[in-house]
Amino acid sequence: MNEKEIAVTDVSRYIVLAIYDIADNKRRQNMVKCLSRYAVRVQKSCFEGILTTKQCSQMEKYASRIINDSEDSLRIYRLRDHTKVKSWGRGHIETEDVVIF
Amino acid sequence: MNEKEIAVTDVSRYIVLAIYDIADNKRRQNMVKCLSRYAVRVQKSCFEGILTTKQCSQMEKYASRIINDSEDSLRIYRLRDHTKVKSWGRGHIETEDVVIF
Repeated sequence: MNEKEIAVTDVSRYIVLAIYDIADNKRRQNMVKCLSRYAVRVQKSCFEGILTTKQCSQMEKYASRIINDSEDSLRIYRLRDHTKVKSWGRGHIETEDVVIF
Repeated sequence: MNEKEIAVTDVSRYIVLAIYDIADNKRRQNMVKCLSRYAVRVQKSCFEGILTTKQCSQMEKYASRIINDSEDSLRIYRLRDHTKVKSWGRGHIETEDVVIF
């Protein structure tokens, strides 16, 4: 088990968590491409990133255009500092370091 | 698009987000059963719940036993009050209300 507390020293940024359920393969690939420009993949359909307000709004704009409202689901969380996360099993280790500042 | 700010007035509780990647069908069903005892499903592999420390530790204990460390991934976030979440597309509407107090 790996435990960490997410904290960002640069006050103009915060941790963003994007999770999605997308049925269609093409749309799902587009979502991965889109989110990969802003965040790091921590699970198959989950990305974590450290973004400014502008970057986050941009990511939201592009990502929300990709989904089909009746078939897909996209949730973007703006986490607050000192959010705790525990992970078990296959973790994307490089993201663990990237997230902590 | 739906936007909400998660806040819990009962100070002994907090919002927990559990997300998982599980390859094996049987294990995945067991995870759904396990997490459903504590939280509400907001996406295929994502649950949100409002839990006490004891409930959260219990959920972590049982959920982490289900996964295969080399094949699966489980992440449990303890969100802090006023975490913002935006959702697009298919949302589990009943969970939206449940989360806000």
